[in-house]
Amino acid sequence: MNAGKIAREEIRRGLHTGPTAGLAPGYTQGNLVILPQKYAFDFFLFCQRNPKPCPVLDVLEAGKTAPVLTAPTGDIRTDLPKYRIYRDGVLTEEVEEITDHWNDQLVSFLIGCSFTFENALIKEGIGVRHIEENRNVPMYITNIECKPAGVFTGLMVVSMRPVPRRQVEQAIKVTSQFPKVHGAPIHVGSPELIGIKDIHSPDFGDSVSIKSGEVPLFWACGVTPQAAVMRSKPEMVITHSPGHMFITDIKDEELRSQ
Amino acid sequence: MNAGKIAREEIRRGLHTGPTAGLAPGYTQGNLVILPQKYAFDFFLFCQRNPKPCPVLDVLEAGKTAPVLTAPTGDIRTDLPKYRIYRDGVLTEEVEEITDHWNDQLVSFLIGCSFTFENALIKEGIGVRHIEENRNVPMYITNIECKPAGVFTGLMVVSMRPVPRRQVEQAIKVTSQFPKVHGAPIHVGSPELIGIKDIHSPDFGDSVSIKSGEVPLFWACGVTPQAAVMRSKPEMVITHSPGHMFITDIKDEELRSQ
Repeated sequence: MNAGKIAREEIRRGLHTGPTAGLAPGYTQGNLVILPQKYAFDFFLFCQRNPKPCPVLDVLEAGKTAPVLTAPTGDIRTDLPKYRIYRDGVLTEEVEEITDHWNDQLVSFLIGCSFTFENALIKEGIGVRHIEENRNVPMYITNIECKPAGVFTGLMVVSMRPVPRRQVEQAIKVTSQFPKVHGAPIHVGSPELIGIKDIHSPDFGDSVSIKSGEVPLFWACGVTPQAAVMRSKPEMVITHSPGHMFITDIKDEELRSQ
Repeated sequence: MNAGKIAREEIRRGLHTGPTAGLAPGYTQGNLVILPQKYAFDFFLFCQRNPKPCPVLDVLEAGKTAPVLTAPTGDIRTDLPKYRIYRDGVLTEEVEEITDHWNDQLVSFLIGCSFTFENALIKEGIGVRHIEENRNVPMYITNIECKPAGVFTGLMVVSMRPVPRRQVEQAIKVTSQFPKVHGAPIHVGSPELIGIKDIHSPDFGDSVSIKSGEVPLFWACGVTPQAAVMRSKPEMVITHSPGHMFITDIKDEELRSQ
């Protein structure tokens, strides 16, 4: 039995209720977005047109609860430690499972997450500041318009990691090998050029220190599709709680392009 | 104005009614599948789960006629030289434009085509037999089950190109650089292992000669999604006529992975 499956079963049995960072090392974790069926095609299309912020790992048909490509033995209703439920675009509940909220009209999307490339950066000796400082990654709303799809529109959200100048090229190279989980940075160096006014005031997550000689690198972020969905205020949306991801059977290395 | 756009406009004006092979060299051509909206999500999912035979280049919302990612000035109703219309799974008409058959419930999919990697093979000095023999590529129904999605199921269809033994490795390497247009072969050498009984009797296309010292290479083929759709016998499906493709603004080189 693989470590991803073991971790999911522990979470399902209530043995692990905290963030999933560090669980089942080497196994890919994913963002979760669950929507009513009538939004599913448009959301799928939004992801297809904006693959850097919205890399689709797996999509479940309406009412289906097992991710067939990434975790056939999984159950999307119980295998995340914490979920958020939004009604009409407003966060109304945070729960540890969603069995009681489930119905056969719900379509689930698993979307790649930056944990995968962060592990690869660390292996290459490139420090990841928010991990070193034990914070959430800083995220910013940019002025970059996503390609609209159906009812969904929105600005790209990016995450930022400061990297010493001498390691910038290597950081780009390493993350570009993971096109299925955000890939290479979408911008290097000048936050103002992508509409970020104050690098020390992220829109989501926490501020981290940027040391002398370091360059801020910006990656497309999986919060982008969530932000686009919320603008449309669907009657119900369920997502993972920040940091409380779905753990798959896929190894990070399988997502590295040849 | 790029050569892709020029070729589309010539086709639109009825100046070119034949196969598109060789038109706008270097510009990516795509397979077309148009379906009623109620099948669109399942078909999109079938493609996402089976990316080697069904590499999605562009998807148009219901009623939309311009491919936003690959040819924003294009018109899916007029820019292919020949279309096939299927009703309840049966070919009923072959037409030069589909304006009269159009309605706002139709969803269009452009799917990558092997022309892209064939050009790359030829540039590398690897001959493509069916082009040399002026035939259609031989295609075979295999015993490889596609991953089902919603109402769609089916066996993978493959195309075959014989390659001299000394060039096999290079042919695999070149085509693996084009994951968005079928990528590396799915099988090398033994047709019987993938359920092909007689290599000289393809299920679609034409037989080509296999010379002494040559190995048959099998690539996932864009006929796969069409075959899956036909099994479900939707009330109407429109596709390109074989060889009469949609020419995009995208250059083949843009589809090469780094």
